[in-house]
Amino acid sequence: MHFNLFLHDTGHHEASWRLPGSDPYANLSLEAHQHLARVAEDAKFDSVFLADSPVLWSDPGRRPSGKLEPTVLLAALAVTTRRIGLIATASTSYNEPYNLARRFASLDHLSGGRAGWNIVTTAGDAAARNFGLDDQPLHRSRYERADEFLQVATKLWDSWADDAVVADKAAGVHARHDRVRGIEHRGPWFRVDGPLNLPRSPQAHPLLVQAGSSEDGKEFAARWAEAVFTAQPTLAESQAFYADIKRRAVAAGRDPDHVVVLPGIVPVIGDTEREARELDAELDRLIAPRYALAQLAQTLRVDPAVLDLDAPLPADLPGEDEIEGAKSRYTLIVDWARRDNLTVRQLIGKLGGGRGHRTFAGTPLQIADTIQHYFDNGAADGFNIMPAVLPSGIEAFAAKVVPLLQERGLFRTEYDGTTLREHYGLPRPADRFALV
Amino acid sequence: MHFNLFLHDTGHHEASWRLPGSDPYANLSLEAHQHLARVAEDAKFDSVFLADSPVLWSDPGRRPSGKLEPTVLLAALAVTTRRIGLIATASTSYNEPYNLARRFASLDHLSGGRAGWNIVTTAGDAAARNFGLDDQPLHRSRYERADEFLQVATKLWDSWADDAVVADKAAGVHARHDRVRGIEHRGPWFRVDGPLNLPRSPQAHPLLVQAGSSEDGKEFAARWAEAVFTAQPTLAESQAFYADIKRRAVAAGRDPDHVVVLPGIVPVIGDTEREARELDAELDRLIAPRYALAQLAQTLRVDPAVLDLDAPLPADLPGEDEIEGAKSRYTLIVDWARRDNLTVRQLIGKLGGGRGHRTFAGTPLQIADTIQHYFDNGAADGFNIMPAVLPSGIEAFAAKVVPLLQERGLFRTEYDGTTLREHYGLPRPADRFALV
Repeated sequence: MHFNLFLHDTGHHEASWRLPGSDPYANLSLEAHQHLARVAEDAKFDSVFLADSPVLWSDPGRRPSGKLEPTVLLAALAVTTRRIGLIATASTSYNEPYNLARRFASLDHLSGGRAGWNIVTTAGDAAARNFGLDDQPLHRSRYERADEFLQVATKLWDSWADDAVVADKAAGVHARHDRVRGIEHRGPWFRVDGPLNLPRSPQAHPLLVQAGSSEDGKEFAARWAEAVFTAQPTLAESQAFYADIKRRAVAAGRDPDHVVVLPGIVPVIGDTEREARELDAELDRLIAPRYALAQLAQTLRVDPAVLDLDAPLPADLPGEDEIEGAKSRYTLIVDWARRDNLTVRQLIGKLGGGRGHRTFAGTPLQIADTIQHYFDNGAADGFNIMPAVLPSGIEAFAAKVVPLLQERGLFRTEYDGTTLREHYGLPRPADRFALV
Repeated sequence: MHFNLFLHDTGHHEASWRLPGSDPYANLSLEAHQHLARVAEDAKFDSVFLADSPVLWSDPGRRPSGKLEPTVLLAALAVTTRRIGLIATASTSYNEPYNLARRFASLDHLSGGRAGWNIVTTAGDAAARNFGLDDQPLHRSRYERADEFLQVATKLWDSWADDAVVADKAAGVHARHDRVRGIEHRGPWFRVDGPLNLPRSPQAHPLLVQAGSSEDGKEFAARWAEAVFTAQPTLAESQAFYADIKRRAVAAGRDPDHVVVLPGIVPVIGDTEREARELDAELDRLIAPRYALAQLAQTLRVDPAVLDLDAPLPADLPGEDEIEGAKSRYTLIVDWARRDNLTVRQLIGKLGGGRGHRTFAGTPLQIADTIQHYFDNGAADGFNIMPAVLPSGIEAFAAKVVPLLQERGLFRTEYDGTTLREHYGLPRPADRFALV
């Protein structure tokens, strides 16, 4: 079983920063992030992860909205950790492949083989407008670019043979020039000569992670992803998603064990059930509906005025086909509200807590049991742990939930390997020079 | 007097990696960089600096050619240093302003106000071919883009008022939305809505550094740069450059003290003159002429076959007007070779050592005297220290040259401030919201 800690300043619940014990400046604090990464590493987590988008995500009043750029922040965290993997989100729509391939190779070198890349195509017009566009590119076109971006990036990472550097002082030859070569990529989106200006890194390629669950997203995951983050609100949906991804990986000619599926869960931990439920309720009470309502309206592509806090969602919403943004997120929200017959206020409470991920409020034993139940029933290879409140949520999870899973033989008590790929049981990509 | 350490794995001399004591893998080593930064910080240097270009710089045989991306590497160095400034080179031609403004703001937040940006437009067709172009953009057009890039970046850094974040838990207001605003930039090169997704950083803007010495470069420096790195082979040329930059800054309406001029010097330190000269000669003996000849031919835009190692440069070389790359570097090399009537072999030796910067081989006392002489005679506000061999060159400089300058009252014995701007005596940019 694998665990990733999804880093998120004071926690994944949007009102977590308002709790008396929360540091509302944690989003910009190196020390706060170092503490989270250390707690996760002491608990032998596989990795920590940072989400990202090159845009101000929401009204800056709502919660801490300043976000340190992930590759920069994780480079700093590499220094005060030794074994845990470091997964940064970066956009294929708003970066150049040479620059991004190089930053991830740099992080992999610096961290001794612990870099991971959560590949996103970045939904939303607001982000597009920070990069010279009027509107976001079409969903399909973002994925076409992402596919070619990955072709370029992997060629660049493979542009030095593993044995290129010889450092022969006597002969005055640092690297063998016949073991470093240009990539001469020519495609509809990119023309890149290469080679990369970095030797092949400890992992060769960073661990490739993906989280989109649309049809395009799942096809992309089947081709490229080695780990998949996903939001699935029920066991049945998790099982269906898990089977679907593994099937698509096989259809793409890959070993299904080389695509690790990690549903997100939002634990709200109390020493008693009552304590957990009280914390959960306190958090929901602290949500300011004005922000949440505006964001829900934006996701649904409707005017906020048509949303009544104490009524269900309107009947006439756009279909997923009309959504060019985060398609799977849209469908998840609409289906959930309709299935459970939620009012807008109830829906906002649930979204504010886990943003569509499964929230568990309970005792450590209840949470360990649920995790094991998912794991034993074909719903997950591990979990993306998204504590509602940080750092207390990961401290409690590490101290009280992880030992239960270790006692049951489900989770490691020590790291076996040194690289992120080793933690997830994934192979190091072959040297393309050796294949010739 | 100010000192910057120009980080460069085993040293600035191209053959330094071949010395018996050099670690030929230092270019990829976090520990090696941490050591250099710590030695410089213990000696109270203002800053450390990393050059960069998004391309493989030279034949990978010649010297360690893998380069970790500077913002990522300096984020890691921020963790193991406390006071020294961290200056990263990044290209305005091959980045998007939103991404780069954000990475520097992130580094400034993470380091507590120690980030600096060496702004480059990136010469060379090889780099252009990693970004979808056939050839490098024209020199003038690169500087036009750079100018607008800086307009966008500074607007983004100023898109949050200093007092925007209130973190009012009781009211449920994290930041005041009327103190965060879009920039709505519309120009010939960029359209960027903003705001940045980060509050204003400790220094507000990273220290802006520039190093091009062409006419376009000096005009750009006069408008934007707060520190200028420059290669000047003689005292007279340094004085002329110094006066020129200060004059241009005044003409641009700026305080000349707010543009700090830092010529590069390459110290080769021995306890005796003879020891220094022997190290210098040993380094030159280790240069492999095949690589240096190819690079010289490329800089001069001539066929390598027309260069005879034991003859002067050919008479019919292109004029600076025809050079679209590093214009000032081209002129410096040609003038130098002709003035000193150097053979190609002699020129290669001098370039391999200091790449056009002033090389001083001597005792600590001789080096301290030369530095003082430049400083006292209007040639420099400080120096970009580029040891021929690292780490030994900076260890010797810190242990033997710095104390002499401290005894003379020329260099600090303790840091007064905490930010990079404070070290260089430069103001923090005003809050644009306060100006309204």
